[in-house]
Amino acid sequence: MLKTNRPKRRSAIAALALLTLVSTASADPLPSWNDGTAKKAIIAFVARTTTADSPDYVAPAARIATFDNDGCLWAEQPLYFQLIYIIERIKSLAPEHPEWKDTEPFASILNGDVKKALAGGKKALLDLTMATHAGITTEEFDQSVRDWLATARHPKTGRPYNEMVYQPMLELLAYLRANDFKTFIVTGGGIDFVRVFAEETYGIPPEQVVGSSIKTSYEIREGKPALVKLPELNFIDDKEGKPIGIHQHIGRRPIFAAGNSDGDFQMLEWTTAGKGARFGLLVHHTDAEREWAYDRDSHIGKLARGLDEGPKRGWTIVNMKDDWARVFAE
Amino acid sequence: MLKTNRPKRRSAIAALALLTLVSTASADPLPSWNDGTAKKAIIAFVARTTTADSPDYVAPAARIATFDNDGCLWAEQPLYFQLIYIIERIKSLAPEHPEWKDTEPFASILNGDVKKALAGGKKALLDLTMATHAGITTEEFDQSVRDWLATARHPKTGRPYNEMVYQPMLELLAYLRANDFKTFIVTGGGIDFVRVFAEETYGIPPEQVVGSSIKTSYEIREGKPALVKLPELNFIDDKEGKPIGIHQHIGRRPIFAAGNSDGDFQMLEWTTAGKGARFGLLVHHTDAEREWAYDRDSHIGKLARGLDEGPKRGWTIVNMKDDWARVFAE
Repeated sequence: MLKTNRPKRRSAIAALALLTLVSTASADPLPSWNDGTAKKAIIAFVARTTTADSPDYVAPAARIATFDNDGCLWAEQPLYFQLIYIIERIKSLAPEHPEWKDTEPFASILNGDVKKALAGGKKALLDLTMATHAGITTEEFDQSVRDWLATARHPKTGRPYNEMVYQPMLELLAYLRANDFKTFIVTGGGIDFVRVFAEETYGIPPEQVVGSSIKTSYEIREGKPALVKLPELNFIDDKEGKPIGIHQHIGRRPIFAAGNSDGDFQMLEWTTAGKGARFGLLVHHTDAEREWAYDRDSHIGKLARGLDEGPKRGWTIVNMKDDWARVFAE
Repeated sequence: MLKTNRPKRRSAIAALALLTLVSTASADPLPSWNDGTAKKAIIAFVARTTTADSPDYVAPAARIATFDNDGCLWAEQPLYFQLIYIIERIKSLAPEHPEWKDTEPFASILNGDVKKALAGGKKALLDLTMATHAGITTEEFDQSVRDWLATARHPKTGRPYNEMVYQPMLELLAYLRANDFKTFIVTGGGIDFVRVFAEETYGIPPEQVVGSSIKTSYEIREGKPALVKLPELNFIDDKEGKPIGIHQHIGRRPIFAAGNSDGDFQMLEWTTAGKGARFGLLVHHTDAEREWAYDRDSHIGKLARGLDEGPKRGWTIVNMKDDWARVFAE
């Protein structure tokens, strides 16, 4: 009886397996992407790097995918969200710093004139960053960002900042991970800032975030060890810094990289110059209605060289307006 | 017929599952560890941090375990193996550097007098490091280390260096990973040096190696991007540097840390000062017969403060001679 039963059971199992395959294949992994060249290119790339008998097959361990954050995973207008954190933090710290009323760039921030404050250029930005990021422990900084995210709201949408994330990119992250890619953030923003929400928001754990940083010291405070953030730059993870940061943290070249500005150019260049199948993706902000439209002349997220050279280099330019059926996550 | 068949099949499956459970439970996950307090403490820690209803339960994402490399995962006598690489590399590069014959510390290395070469202290070591690590691309360095590992042999055992790894520690790494710990190397040695063999030797991918480094530049060479190693220190991942490096790369505090020298003290201090269940482990080199015996007065891997304070801090001191049934992997 068992003997005659076996083939039946086998064929039932085979049918079930087939059904699962069919249903997996027919379920759209990127439902918020309109059918178009960008979506097709992504799916074709994943298929040919993960299919065992493909000439472009890549072993799971080498399936490294890196993503810029500002303007690529979440929005960056009207100002980088970390800069909004800095501005609001300066205001809440002001009572402890009466001297700020007469010192730039703090005075202008407190007067609500962000433009004037930032007219001081790099020096002004550095002063504001150090005043809000240094002199506290890593745990205190983490808590401060966590508290801010819980209460702060975007000036245009009224939504929490960590909800202003792009649904198509969340789907792309999940799709790559479902195909055994390891997803990393490689951001010009602060590594400790992004780590606070990256795991919950993007499913990316702290150890897979690469970013800009200030130096840290190890101290014993009241008998307990603490890591204290120092007012000294450690690393700028932007432009040439991105491949350098990738090497430092990841130690191997990605096969997939996504960005949206010329700050990501070198990351895509480094990624796509490697041997074998590679994917470079640039999100082009073209949707003034659902998001913002900006590129060559933007003060934030400037994209010019990427638009000029990207297509020649085989990079996929995502036209947000046409390629995305939906922009923000619900 | 199917109906009557089902319970039988089910009970057969249940019996099989039970058998697997029993065999798993009875299989010793640490066969090269003698039964003793160290082995018992490790197993008890893993049980109480991974059992769902335990008050000390830790979610898988937070199960971060960090391991020193020299003297903890592989041997470090008579000299750090990376230093042996440097010495042998200086010799093979000498024909391209006739000036080395008259310049210290190179002249002494070429004369076979390592002691005299290293008498120049930090400056001498830095000169030797830069001469062998800088001015080449990351890929060239990687290949050079790979070639060296393939042919170099340890002066005492005649074995390849990446075979002089501790079997009990390999089992510990595998045991932790089988219990959903993520294992990292946190080494005072060079991050790019250790990454060359860490994946194959320890099952630890490049992105889970933290270490000392020199700076890197991103350059276009003959139309192709390259990362070039520069003769400038970037980070020393030793002593206070270990918790700092852990924060920079991992972004959260480990719950398990293993080392063997006072260079690991702060890593264990930082790890075990966290809330909840924590484990600190120090390998004490006590076996002059099967390995080497050294601690307080050693020029390499000095262990004094760890021996004095470790037990009071609840750290487990592994007595290599008594706790390990076997030392090196076959």
